[in-house]
Amino acid sequence: MKVAVLGFGTVGRGVYEMLQNCSTLSCDCVLERPGVFNEPFIVNDINTILEDRSIEAVAECIGGTTIAHDFAVKCLSAGKHFVTSNKALISAYGLELRNLAAKNGVSLLFSAACGGTMPVLHNMALARRSDTLFKSGGILNGTCNFMLTKMQDEGSSFEDALAEARRLGYAEADPSADLSGLDTLRKVILLSAVGFDAFPSGDLLCEGIQNTDAAAISELKARGLVLRLIGSCGRNQDGSLYAFVQPVAFSSSAAEANVKMNTNMAFWEGENCGRVTISGQGAGRYPTAANVLRDLTELPECRKSMLSSKCREEKVNNGGCEFRYIVIENGSVSITEKMPVSAMFAKAEIKRKEGAGFFFAAMEE
Amino acid sequence: MKVAVLGFGTVGRGVYEMLQNCSTLSCDCVLERPGVFNEPFIVNDINTILEDRSIEAVAECIGGTTIAHDFAVKCLSAGKHFVTSNKALISAYGLELRNLAAKNGVSLLFSAACGGTMPVLHNMALARRSDTLFKSGGILNGTCNFMLTKMQDEGSSFEDALAEARRLGYAEADPSADLSGLDTLRKVILLSAVGFDAFPSGDLLCEGIQNTDAAAISELKARGLVLRLIGSCGRNQDGSLYAFVQPVAFSSSAAEANVKMNTNMAFWEGENCGRVTISGQGAGRYPTAANVLRDLTELPECRKSMLSSKCREEKVNNGGCEFRYIVIENGSVSITEKMPVSAMFAKAEIKRKEGAGFFFAAMEE
Repeated sequence: MKVAVLGFGTVGRGVYEMLQNCSTLSCDCVLERPGVFNEPFIVNDINTILEDRSIEAVAECIGGTTIAHDFAVKCLSAGKHFVTSNKALISAYGLELRNLAAKNGVSLLFSAACGGTMPVLHNMALARRSDTLFKSGGILNGTCNFMLTKMQDEGSSFEDALAEARRLGYAEADPSADLSGLDTLRKVILLSAVGFDAFPSGDLLCEGIQNTDAAAISELKARGLVLRLIGSCGRNQDGSLYAFVQPVAFSSSAAEANVKMNTNMAFWEGENCGRVTISGQGAGRYPTAANVLRDLTELPECRKSMLSSKCREEKVNNGGCEFRYIVIENGSVSITEKMPVSAMFAKAEIKRKEGAGFFFAAMEE
Repeated sequence: MKVAVLGFGTVGRGVYEMLQNCSTLSCDCVLERPGVFNEPFIVNDINTILEDRSIEAVAECIGGTTIAHDFAVKCLSAGKHFVTSNKALISAYGLELRNLAAKNGVSLLFSAACGGTMPVLHNMALARRSDTLFKSGGILNGTCNFMLTKMQDEGSSFEDALAEARRLGYAEADPSADLSGLDTLRKVILLSAVGFDAFPSGDLLCEGIQNTDAAAISELKARGLVLRLIGSCGRNQDGSLYAFVQPVAFSSSAAEANVKMNTNMAFWEGENCGRVTISGQGAGRYPTAANVLRDLTELPECRKSMLSSKCREEKVNNGGCEFRYIVIENGSVSITEKMPVSAMFAKAEIKRKEGAGFFFAAMEE
């Protein structure tokens, strides 16, 4: 099967290279803006790909939601399978693209959009067909986990940890989507869409690590606790959906506490399968490209969509999940009674509007 | 697609039950010995299934290598897809059954044969198509891991830990395949066959936990070490294959040390994907049945074999892997220089022939 790659950046280049060594797939066409690369396989016009009927599949590695969305619509409409690592694209336009793929009888796969090399979405898509999944989440952002590990294990400041993450290429020039938890939230949206047939909408609560400083880490450490940024989604007892991102304090023997540096960890729970956990490198050229390739190698033998025909948008109810929280307000530490996630987020918002320094982390159950 | 189940024991009953709730598969036929069950869906003659052309796939849940092998040959020869959780069957007859499946144009899948609910073989089969895998293994036996956890964390004796495992249904009436490491070794054979296209043969080294007593655990604990039974396979630098099972002593912060009770953990490493780790319940009716169901749900849309056409038998070279070992000989503890696995096993054999109490565990790298 002949594949075209959109974008020749970190992931796109990895995908192109890996395709050169693949027995069942070939690639001699990569789309990039004019004037950047001169390689003979580079094309600058999406129509070259759309009009080439020998190209059956497209691997999108551009990122973002503007050009990538335009190209996704065009490729699917032209009857080409669409494989992507773009979490922003799928979390925003997943249902539209699923419908287009179904209408044109082609596949829409995005294994690499959550967890880099970890085959979490692929396995949840398979598992949900013969099992009822009800919970998922994990450590889904390598930049934040790297910084938290540096702060916890080496006593780094937030700024030094961020600088080190930048130096090693883990953090982007603008790291705000990582630090704010938005990147984790987008992955949570994908876990929910694939695992529970529900794109969470409404009041998705998202607290990142911007309010975590060395002093907070030090207070947690003194209590034997290790901080991780956790994305969570699942079904409440009443069947309603929850989806949120928040820092969680774990005991040092918890599995999450031992996921260090830029490693990611994701889990899902189902009625029959129990709890299954996967960990691996959450980002990077070859780990991410390997997951794109895996999707591509499935295309010649299977026609499938990671999003089922039942998948719908669904309002979240984040009042049904309760945690005890450790709170640090202007330097003073307290631990709350069990309270709804939504109530903690509301309290934090009020306190911060009043100008208070306010850190919170859920206590591991 | 219509499926027949062979065997109505722990796993077979779970598979039958789950098939009743599956939208794409149906089952109204389970094979069992005469006189045990009277349910209307029970049949006693394999020919009933072989001759029913509406049955396209068979899920074998009998176990063992005699009847199960006979039925596997008959079902594949009759052009029926064959899905099994039987590690003894595939580790002994995998190549023969792969050839039969290929000849008859049907699938041979055995996800549930390694790691219960963990989709490790399935993912390695997918990953190897676009990546070069070179290492795999893990904690693959829940009975041993349960016993080691009890001994380590609660100070149980070997006998009490075994009795408790029996009471909870983790250990079989005859636990020798678990304790000797043979069960783990069979899973290692499957990891190697799927991941590296090589059924290991020759001098497969296998040390279980029969020589591990409370005194040994206590010596390790005093050094901050946690014992786990680890199956290992991979490629040496010179490309030769290794495959062995041995106890390994980990630092308490290692991921393996935090895999407790009857949880399993498996990993694979590839050039592009890096290290990917999966953990979950390694056994039990529904976790195992869930993995059988996952294989079954793939059949209507894909035709595949977990064993590639390139998979061959290959002699192992266990002299290429070196570890430092902690050795307890008649109560006295020592730590060796780095030495080949094969040399340590040879030494243990000699010492035990001389009548010495001899415990050894590799030190985590």
